[in-house]
Amino acid sequence: MSTNGKTSNGNGNGNAHGANCLSGVRIVDLSQFEAGPSCTESLAWLGAEVVKIEPPGKGEQSRRAFARPTNADSWYFLQFNANKKSVTLDLKSDEGMELVKKLIAEADVFIENMAPGTIERLGLGYDTVRELNPKIIYAQVKGFGEGTPYSGYLSFDPIAQAFGGIMSVSGESGSRPVKPGPGLGDTGTGMLLAISILGALYQAKGTGKGQRIQVAMEDACKHYIRLAWAFTAGNNEACGRYGPKALGGRTAPQGVFKCKGGGSNDYVYIMCHAAVGNHWDRLLDVIGRGELHGDPRYDTPKARYENEKEVNAIVEAWTSQHDKYDVMKAVGDAGVPCSAVRDTLEMYEDADLVRRGIMQVADHPEHGEIKMVGWPVRHDGHTPQLKPAPLLGQHNDDVLGGWLGMSVGDLASLRGKGVI
Amino acid sequence: MSTNGKTSNGNGNGNAHGANCLSGVRIVDLSQFEAGPSCTESLAWLGAEVVKIEPPGKGEQSRRAFARPTNADSWYFLQFNANKKSVTLDLKSDEGMELVKKLIAEADVFIENMAPGTIERLGLGYDTVRELNPKIIYAQVKGFGEGTPYSGYLSFDPIAQAFGGIMSVSGESGSRPVKPGPGLGDTGTGMLLAISILGALYQAKGTGKGQRIQVAMEDACKHYIRLAWAFTAGNNEACGRYGPKALGGRTAPQGVFKCKGGGSNDYVYIMCHAAVGNHWDRLLDVIGRGELHGDPRYDTPKARYENEKEVNAIVEAWTSQHDKYDVMKAVGDAGVPCSAVRDTLEMYEDADLVRRGIMQVADHPEHGEIKMVGWPVRHDGHTPQLKPAPLLGQHNDDVLGGWLGMSVGDLASLRGKGVI
Repeated sequence: MSTNGKTSNGNGNGNAHGANCLSGVRIVDLSQFEAGPSCTESLAWLGAEVVKIEPPGKGEQSRRAFARPTNADSWYFLQFNANKKSVTLDLKSDEGMELVKKLIAEADVFIENMAPGTIERLGLGYDTVRELNPKIIYAQVKGFGEGTPYSGYLSFDPIAQAFGGIMSVSGESGSRPVKPGPGLGDTGTGMLLAISILGALYQAKGTGKGQRIQVAMEDACKHYIRLAWAFTAGNNEACGRYGPKALGGRTAPQGVFKCKGGGSNDYVYIMCHAAVGNHWDRLLDVIGRGELHGDPRYDTPKARYENEKEVNAIVEAWTSQHDKYDVMKAVGDAGVPCSAVRDTLEMYEDADLVRRGIMQVADHPEHGEIKMVGWPVRHDGHTPQLKPAPLLGQHNDDVLGGWLGMSVGDLASLRGKGVI
Repeated sequence: MSTNGKTSNGNGNGNAHGANCLSGVRIVDLSQFEAGPSCTESLAWLGAEVVKIEPPGKGEQSRRAFARPTNADSWYFLQFNANKKSVTLDLKSDEGMELVKKLIAEADVFIENMAPGTIERLGLGYDTVRELNPKIIYAQVKGFGEGTPYSGYLSFDPIAQAFGGIMSVSGESGSRPVKPGPGLGDTGTGMLLAISILGALYQAKGTGKGQRIQVAMEDACKHYIRLAWAFTAGNNEACGRYGPKALGGRTAPQGVFKCKGGGSNDYVYIMCHAAVGNHWDRLLDVIGRGELHGDPRYDTPKARYENEKEVNAIVEAWTSQHDKYDVMKAVGDAGVPCSAVRDTLEMYEDADLVRRGIMQVADHPEHGEIKMVGWPVRHDGHTPQLKPAPLLGQHNDDVLGGWLGMSVGDLASLRGKGVI
């Protein structure tokens, strides 16, 4: 495969190679868009065989969603379906349904994230699937929690972030809530589901026990704001919005500071931690304001917080004269927590990320060379090797042949009838 | 135990009971604050025996961090250390170091997230630990990636969110970046690490293979903004900030709309999806503006986006007259994606979350009755049972006795010498 060739000859991805933690695990994946696909993609990166079941002809909807500059599969689809296999099956035909049931009988995990009630109408509800395969781990993503008045409502990432409380703690103080860029309702949910599926797989390996696993996107969002919950539990008030500061942050300086250039991301983040180290004094030396050492207006976190505007002005008077990476180097070298605010284009063009195997380059049959973030965790020093998202039906022969023993003739017949 | 008593007698937590997916898995946990502890807490919720090693007398630093209205353990600590055990060991003493090494020899997983270089100086670097226990899964959180110019720099959640790109896509368009409320640099990292540890545990169950696992907080952040990466890959531009809209959102209405009350979270989120369903027409009926059906100014997602200000004004003229939950019910019932923006106090007081086992109530020896979000994924219909975070050294006898066979006399002697 060309991807492997590219890697082994050292053209990028220097640090990536195959991971096989989950080698032998078979997953039948009926999920779409992001919450389900981000979950199964993480399992695929760890070596599971994830088979995406898609309608013949058009495929999963997100092949045509967002960021699709050509008629090729969308960039969005590529992000969330790497390292998977694609099998087409017309689930509205009797033969298609029969085949998916046969695949389910051979699988360890089944997953779906359709709109409320859809999987049951399709005829693949839990009771049916468990009967086909009592050892199956049956995993589902819901939008709103089952058993709530809202369980029949549609959900998408921003809806989950609103109802799950994330938006209430994101944005400028005194202004309207914003939706954070990260897909907490989607990928955030997918990661929690992956953890629970892996727990169930671990248990099943010893016991053969199947189980049903469900998570609601709104509930997953609550998991990611537990610092906010700590404040509410402690003072019985809603946690507020703190702009660029950490939730509750009653210290200074902490936040973003303008740098030279004036672009929308020409900022550094600087935080003098209230509890850890003598960051403020170190910072004064870096910015050439050593005469302020010991000044009672700024000498404690409390004093600096009370004089936050002045403190921030002192810091920004210096940062605004320098490039953000120069600031990061000077302040970071001095042992003060600091970072440039980086945008996605800067990172996309950062060769260091490819060298470390965090971004990887691969050949896609339609797009040519693609570059994307893979699984960012290293196993024995290596991130898992990226394989590009499959073309529609790319693995029909592989999976229907390999799992079910279908012959070339069987497959040709299915193709003729439009079942695959 | 009082917690179980509370649950079995129906006082809250109606839906929770013990999960035992990882029963028998032993974890030696030297992690602190959030990135490491959120990881091991998820494993504890799934049934692993997580033993937190802490300095005698003062314990892990975060027992005293954030939201600590009394001298009891902080609310922050409680959030991230549920279902764990606590063992005190003075790692600066020879005996303490000898004991932690004996525990490591009995463990399946070792984890730490100290500042760069600290674990090696302590004498528990990978090579040492692997020699003690070749089957160990050795897991580490770094701030900046190893092998980068920044690997020696300090990191905290906001620093990781700045350098990992999250802040560049969070905030109002044309304004400075904000730090999202969720702890992506911390809990976001912890979840990816948990997935990789679970993959390694699955593999080890068959093979006995130990391995080293590492993730940098900056790299974990990149994983959560892959919609932004899709745009950058597609158009070779940095993804911007979109306020309350989804990244790239070129549709309307989509975002937050003011509701009656005027409070900082008296908003609903409404999105008429560009690709799914006839949401706009349904919404017009709900808000009593049926005369606009078919109006060419608003009849397609593109037209509405071009007239976004007018569209938003039409919607807000109606929402601003109603309570956010009433809006959610009317619009949601009509099949249009919609949610109230909920704050943490509203959710904290929502009995429905306790009934569903998403928030749980437990007795803590210092705090009395506590309520917090547990693991939000259901296994066979139940979320795992919450047990409150341990008091300092609460499980010394349990673990040093149970794992190492130490006698009551041995333990008394260690106590006398201040080793535990």
